[in-house]
Amino acid sequence: METLHILKIGGNVLDNPERLQRFLIDFAQLPGPKLLVHGGGKIASTIGLQLGIEPQYVEGRRLTDAETLRVVTMVYAGLLNKNVVAQLQAHGCNAIGLTGADANVIPATKRPVRTIDYGYAGDVAGPETINTAALQTLLQAGLTPVFAPLTHDGQGSLLNTNADTIASVLATALAPFFAVKLVYCFEKKGVLANSADDDSVIQRIDQHYYKALKADGVVTAGMIPKLDNAFAALQQGVKAVLIGEAEALPELAADKKFSGTTLQLHHG
Amino acid sequence: METLHILKIGGNVLDNPERLQRFLIDFAQLPGPKLLVHGGGKIASTIGLQLGIEPQYVEGRRLTDAETLRVVTMVYAGLLNKNVVAQLQAHGCNAIGLTGADANVIPATKRPVRTIDYGYAGDVAGPETINTAALQTLLQAGLTPVFAPLTHDGQGSLLNTNADTIASVLATALAPFFAVKLVYCFEKKGVLANSADDDSVIQRIDQHYYKALKADGVVTAGMIPKLDNAFAALQQGVKAVLIGEAEALPELAADKKFSGTTLQLHHG
Repeated sequence: METLHILKIGGNVLDNPERLQRFLIDFAQLPGPKLLVHGGGKIASTIGLQLGIEPQYVEGRRLTDAETLRVVTMVYAGLLNKNVVAQLQAHGCNAIGLTGADANVIPATKRPVRTIDYGYAGDVAGPETINTAALQTLLQAGLTPVFAPLTHDGQGSLLNTNADTIASVLATALAPFFAVKLVYCFEKKGVLANSADDDSVIQRIDQHYYKALKADGVVTAGMIPKLDNAFAALQQGVKAVLIGEAEALPELAADKKFSGTTLQLHHG
Repeated sequence: METLHILKIGGNVLDNPERLQRFLIDFAQLPGPKLLVHGGGKIASTIGLQLGIEPQYVEGRRLTDAETLRVVTMVYAGLLNKNVVAQLQAHGCNAIGLTGADANVIPATKRPVRTIDYGYAGDVAGPETINTAALQTLLQAGLTPVFAPLTHDGQGSLLNTNADTIASVLATALAPFFAVKLVYCFEKKGVLANSADDDSVIQRIDQHYYKALKADGVVTAGMIPKLDNAFAALQQGVKAVLIGEAEALPELAADKKFSGTTLQLHHG
């Protein structure tokens, strides 16, 4: 099967214009079919505040009220997404910027209110709900989809959705058709054996080693959901999950040894 | 050849949520391949003012400085475009929201500075520059492209571009592949024989009749560029240009007599 790279970038790349530009130049060089998912970054909060919208949090999680949904729709799907697309076009990558509402690629449901109302936050049921036919049409036409972290409820409302989740569900949904490499561009060089030492990158983790790392308390609490999700994606057919700095991208383009962490079900 | 409807809506529809919703329900019913181009509306100015950006005009035309480009990118490509897409999806129309930068559909050039610097305003060279292959791929996949009035310069910058121009250039570019009907949703019921009488719609105008109407001063100065452009599109292969109220759309969906003005090269 042909390799498909799915990359996810977050605020640490998006908030720094020089870093973003360097990343996009490298991304454009990546051979074969590819797909980019971007997160939000600080700019949405900045613009929200300028418009007089105070960010609201419940238990540390941002609440998406109707006003905030308008701001993230403007910033994520407009300002960030279309500037990324225009820059990729300048570097010879035929990008097409989308949300999960476009071509109905990512249907979602508004998160049900239990004890907390997160507002217009979207949950994706699973990879089986993804419209892979539309994605394959775009990829076969030589286009590079660029996703903003928004989905929709099929009833006319957009929904704010976690970019890591979007990257992971797209990777899993496309795994039957491609050898998917899911790459999380991260603020660290990879998963660290010693959180105080930025150079203590663990190069390879398989599922047995991951169990041992968790049992030994090497993997920190904040990393566990990320890695649990990565192994769930691997169990559903994603070939490899790579975690590293955006600056490690040229290694992938040149098919060199990846300096970050590579997660695979089985060592080899 | 299969009929392709290309519709253009402007501020008079976009600024009124009920009118927009009714239009989108009607648009979703239109059979066969179709494409929507939307303009801006007042919301960009409102949000620009909230962000402290004073609109600047040169000889009655809005100047797109860097700050204004950011605002229109947020509002046109984000807020308006994605909400239109989400609403169309709710009405069973598989919409995909784009700018001219996406899939490099509409390359443009920054308007050269002669006596006036219009800033980030984009001019489209002509229908031969349009990436029709990407558009045909989308239409063949059953998707309905929805264009925000932005193009790009191929060097990383988005450009603010007139929505009427985008509709007309897309119609002309697609004329070799489809029997294109270009529909301008207008604030009046059509081209009026008497500008003081809203019901004096001229139902059909061919190129000879148009010459006579211009010679007799029936067509008002403001309409002449619009109609000149329409006849230019007809001369380049567009089958018909229709001008009427958004509310006349169900007539097209039902293949009934159109109550607005139909422009064709030859009467028939």
